[in-house]
Amino acid sequence: MARPPRFDLLFGPVRIGPKTARNRFFQVPHASGMTNANPHVRAAFRGMKAEGGWAVVSTGACSVHPSSDDSPFPFASLWDEADIRAHRVMTDAVHAHGALAAVELWHGGAAAVNRTTRHAPLSPSGVPWMATHVGFMSSARPRVMDAGDIRNLIRWHAEAAKRAERAGFDILYVYAGMGYLPYQFLLSDYNHRTDAYGGSVRNRVRLTEELIDAVREATGGRCAVALRVSLQELRSRPSEVAPSEAHEVITHLSDAPDLFDVKMDYSATDCSPSRFTPEGSHEPMVDFVKTLTAKPVVGVGRFTSPDTMVSMVRRGVLDFIGAARPSIADPFLPRKIEEGREDDIRECIGCNICISSWHDGVWVRCTQNPTAGEEWRRGWHPEIVRRDAEGSVLIVGGGPAGLEAALTLGRRGFRVTVAEAQRDFGGRLLWESRLPGLRQWFRVVDYRLGQLRKLPGVALHVESRMEAADVRDFGADHVVIATGARWTANLCGANEIPAGSLVGPRVYTPDDIAAGAEIEGPVAVFDFDNYYMGSAVAEHLAARGLDTTYVTSAGSAQSWGVMTNEQPLVHQAFLKAGIAYRTLEIVEAFDGETLSLAQIFTGERRQIAARALVVVGQRAGGSALYDALAGTGEPKSLVLTGDANAPGAIAHAVYQAHRAARELAAAAPRIRRDAPFAMRDLDACGEAAQ
Amino acid sequence: MARPPRFDLLFGPVRIGPKTARNRFFQVPHASGMTNANPHVRAAFRGMKAEGGWAVVSTGACSVHPSSDDSPFPFASLWDEADIRAHRVMTDAVHAHGALAAVELWHGGAAAVNRTTRHAPLSPSGVPWMATHVGFMSSARPRVMDAGDIRNLIRWHAEAAKRAERAGFDILYVYAGMGYLPYQFLLSDYNHRTDAYGGSVRNRVRLTEELIDAVREATGGRCAVALRVSLQELRSRPSEVAPSEAHEVITHLSDAPDLFDVKMDYSATDCSPSRFTPEGSHEPMVDFVKTLTAKPVVGVGRFTSPDTMVSMVRRGVLDFIGAARPSIADPFLPRKIEEGREDDIRECIGCNICISSWHDGVWVRCTQNPTAGEEWRRGWHPEIVRRDAEGSVLIVGGGPAGLEAALTLGRRGFRVTVAEAQRDFGGRLLWESRLPGLRQWFRVVDYRLGQLRKLPGVALHVESRMEAADVRDFGADHVVIATGARWTANLCGANEIPAGSLVGPRVYTPDDIAAGAEIEGPVAVFDFDNYYMGSAVAEHLAARGLDTTYVTSAGSAQSWGVMTNEQPLVHQAFLKAGIAYRTLEIVEAFDGETLSLAQIFTGERRQIAARALVVVGQRAGGSALYDALAGTGEPKSLVLTGDANAPGAIAHAVYQAHRAARELAAAAPRIRRDAPFAMRDLDACGEAAQ
Repeated sequence: MARPPRFDLLFGPVRIGPKTARNRFFQVPHASGMTNANPHVRAAFRGMKAEGGWAVVSTGACSVHPSSDDSPFPFASLWDEADIRAHRVMTDAVHAHGALAAVELWHGGAAAVNRTTRHAPLSPSGVPWMATHVGFMSSARPRVMDAGDIRNLIRWHAEAAKRAERAGFDILYVYAGMGYLPYQFLLSDYNHRTDAYGGSVRNRVRLTEELIDAVREATGGRCAVALRVSLQELRSRPSEVAPSEAHEVITHLSDAPDLFDVKMDYSATDCSPSRFTPEGSHEPMVDFVKTLTAKPVVGVGRFTSPDTMVSMVRRGVLDFIGAARPSIADPFLPRKIEEGREDDIRECIGCNICISSWHDGVWVRCTQNPTAGEEWRRGWHPEIVRRDAEGSVLIVGGGPAGLEAALTLGRRGFRVTVAEAQRDFGGRLLWESRLPGLRQWFRVVDYRLGQLRKLPGVALHVESRMEAADVRDFGADHVVIATGARWTANLCGANEIPAGSLVGPRVYTPDDIAAGAEIEGPVAVFDFDNYYMGSAVAEHLAARGLDTTYVTSAGSAQSWGVMTNEQPLVHQAFLKAGIAYRTLEIVEAFDGETLSLAQIFTGERRQIAARALVVVGQRAGGSALYDALAGTGEPKSLVLTGDANAPGAIAHAVYQAHRAARELAAAAPRIRRDAPFAMRDLDACGEAAQ
Repeated sequence: MARPPRFDLLFGPVRIGPKTARNRFFQVPHASGMTNANPHVRAAFRGMKAEGGWAVVSTGACSVHPSSDDSPFPFASLWDEADIRAHRVMTDAVHAHGALAAVELWHGGAAAVNRTTRHAPLSPSGVPWMATHVGFMSSARPRVMDAGDIRNLIRWHAEAAKRAERAGFDILYVYAGMGYLPYQFLLSDYNHRTDAYGGSVRNRVRLTEELIDAVREATGGRCAVALRVSLQELRSRPSEVAPSEAHEVITHLSDAPDLFDVKMDYSATDCSPSRFTPEGSHEPMVDFVKTLTAKPVVGVGRFTSPDTMVSMVRRGVLDFIGAARPSIADPFLPRKIEEGREDDIRECIGCNICISSWHDGVWVRCTQNPTAGEEWRRGWHPEIVRRDAEGSVLIVGGGPAGLEAALTLGRRGFRVTVAEAQRDFGGRLLWESRLPGLRQWFRVVDYRLGQLRKLPGVALHVESRMEAADVRDFGADHVVIATGARWTANLCGANEIPAGSLVGPRVYTPDDIAAGAEIEGPVAVFDFDNYYMGSAVAEHLAARGLDTTYVTSAGSAQSWGVMTNEQPLVHQAFLKAGIAYRTLEIVEAFDGETLSLAQIFTGERRQIAARALVVVGQRAGGSALYDALAGTGEPKSLVLTGDANAPGAIAHAVYQAHRAARELAAAAPRIRRDAPFAMRDLDACGEAAQ
């Protein structure tokens, strides 16, 4: 299928200083959790994007010196010869597919408190980068850089740039964003210096300019030099000579780098969940940049629509379509557009499980793309499944796990039947995606249904509840049970010890609301699940006009939302919706009229009036159907997967099902035990333990 | 000096099954942050304790299978041959000094959510181990183990035990504590099974018993088998046949292991800070164990007093003096007692910086012992400093950093003069150690002063304020400035962007209170430092009878206290002292009567009445004396260290000063870049970057 000509604009070559990108698809630097201790994992992850058509593929932030140590957050380094070898594996993988490889040289300054190297953190003026709520908290505060420290910083960048060139990188970033050291020089809140690096914008820009010059000089103009800069705060600062300090900064630097990579300042605005923020949300903050420089500009905005991409270029907002999340969800996004297969795009749902992986300190995970992070370890390709199977599979349950299993099993060559009890496919997402803000999450279902409908040998049935006898009668060779989990009304006690289930009038779970329970107000939502369900249910009830109070055992609303950059946004949504919140409290009892609460650490008791209580706490998996079939000797194999096996986020369900489908009746998988835990890596190809 | 005969009891040999410990000092398994990726770091850290006289030295929890993956928390593994090699380095180091090496075989069950290996977590009945407030939070919930899972778990332990024996371990632990998998079987809150592993205590104990048997059988009785068990919750559960379920459990298992290691269930009770909990606090929970078994018992209690240790043995509470924290603060504690040098013990202050290191995901750090974790990387020995120097050093400032610098420089052979401006040595600890609960922190000063007073060539002067001219006149070859930091009244704004300093009536900092400011109530303490100072000042003010409200930008009181196991205890202290608290709020203004607050995420404003405000936020380092001397060409070297260089916890100040003292006028230090960041380890002996 030929692509629509209106997309041609995205596929011409574009120059970046001495280098040429083959098209306008630019995977900007983003965290992957893959450090120099995992060179093959990283190379396979990044190389997959080059194979998928991205013109530029960047690695994540890369420390220039041990005084920038972000541990325990995963980060890469370019400190010495061993680091060069570790990165060379990645640049080779990227070059093998015709893409340019970029590296983001990074010094975290006060944001990198050097927990492992134990250097004193550096800063322009001794002001810490607090970021308590995104987990950077430490008891260490930075030293004030003197003139020698500034000279060192510039030298470290120059030396790292030389190593980067030797590692094979084409584009070298200077990084003045997201609270890191050059950013702290740009912003007067952090920069109180009285020397040539503080005071006026001209002075505050000086360090960034000297870093760009040093990187260029160190590599003799052979590499392109990019500047990544956060503009959100700067754009809010008035200037006497320009519309904002951001305009001043870009004007001062307009000729300095070969490329501008422009972004926001905070995780919650830069990488915002789809629940609260639409595609293209950066535009109002970065739209002026191209008016002030002739250099190419790249920016992001969770772009998955090719029409939006074309519009960004046509309207002169961006030259390159930057992507982090959409490139994780679908490494083949550019190629699919190029080949006129945009319907095949596995669109990012904006859930931010990917960024939670970095906060978790582990390799990137993706709800939509279960192969993300598994390219090397398990040898999984996002577009290719070996056609190695025959026989029939019955899948009971057509939610995210069931559909993922069907797609992967179907591609392997099985004859697949999906039996869903409800009137529609989608499982938990049928209702959840109708909660405020979660509509785009239904892409998990839409993508899989779309692909399944193109696949021969797959039969999809709704309104088909299966009992054990039905399954036996059906006679499939293999049976996969993916019937999901249910919410319980179990409580949690002091020390978060589980407490019994709450029985009484007007006690509900999310399942009851999904089933249409009529809830009276005032209603309290007690959340000790701490992911999205509790806050989304509160929003849902408030939108129905109910007086709603959210109660949580944690210290903030949706406390796990700090991992997905949702925490501030949830609180803002609560304020907008008039939802009251109470933190650090557990529910001890509810009699239908009075809710008895206790402070989680002290047991101090309070009571509030409520006519209804929704408990969002524990989920229970399990399957009576599975139990009835287990051990009966037929079918040949019986698999429990998804939430029915182990309740989790949708990402967990999709991953479980994908793995089960890859492994069903297959030869024992060869797993490379790559090695955050082990003392080896390059040679780490042993079989996993049993 | 001969030791007092009353301590002889601690030094006879004691049998543990087939092995014999040389004395009663037992370093129980504790987190070190050192994984199989850092075998030499770990071996040097553990081996130092063997050198210091401990009879048993244990490594930390060691996963038996990839389904127990605690990432991002550091953990060790015994999954395969490479792991055996990694542990062998440690057991060799321990054996070289005549100690026994122990390993804690570990399966985390629902507490290990397998972020990297991505196995479904395991549990007896699908109930998650929440532990939201100690950072284990995840969106993944466990599967319910079936009979095959239980058989696997036992087999994994047996296989890991064989590997452990081959790695050279003498004592193999089964671990039924702290929320991990066998513990969850013991406790009915988590175990709702209806098979032979659930229901009665007899049934709930079965798994632990089978694990002990499997480990013993796997190693043919050649290794000792220890059981580590948490008894706090079990002891609170009534039993029909015994004083508590804990008694029942011990009775059922009385002959099963060769050693009992008994402990509490939660970080905040098991490893409680000295601020809230005295030495020997476990005794009431574990004192019954020896009445029910003839096997030796080890337990902990932050023991540093040899008389307390003797009492524990004499009174039949314990057979072995277990230690984690005191063995980090002083690896040579047993040898010092043995040699009658108990005054030389570097006593643990109970600040829990060590456990914060594990929560931080990095190698263990210690306030008292700056060499902890640096034994291999920097080649530092806690008791030995090479005598390699001559010449004179003037140290300005006699707080933790100044005294540490003096001690290390004095040991190196320098003639050292310490000039302290105040009437006493101690710096910030002079006042801070008088805050509620912090008295033991003064051990940092006491230990160093005690050692310095034995050291020739060291002159200690109080009431000796030095100006630049005084320093020049003094004419020392080297000058170290360690004059500390000061608290500012700076505020923090939305997004935790720094805001200006608050000027106005009745605005105070901790320094003002230390200097004796008379504070009127009601008083508000605004804490965005989030470590101990804010909550300790609130306690201090409340103890003076003031109506006190604590306000924090974070989600709980002393939110960084989650790292040091203080969070629940701080809230309990607040309740006891009648201190109100407000979370997720920042101070926008204070006019001496009304405090203007804003919700940190939404900006929603509230006002409360107050007559005084104490801001506990940013500290400022720097030194006018240093600035006046810098660049003048004399002395030969000028060093800014401790809080004056980079404000931090006392651990940071002591470490900075120790390093500066090791490196002053020394040959360039050889630093082994061991390798959480790099792809190598065993061969990682290159020089650090510049």
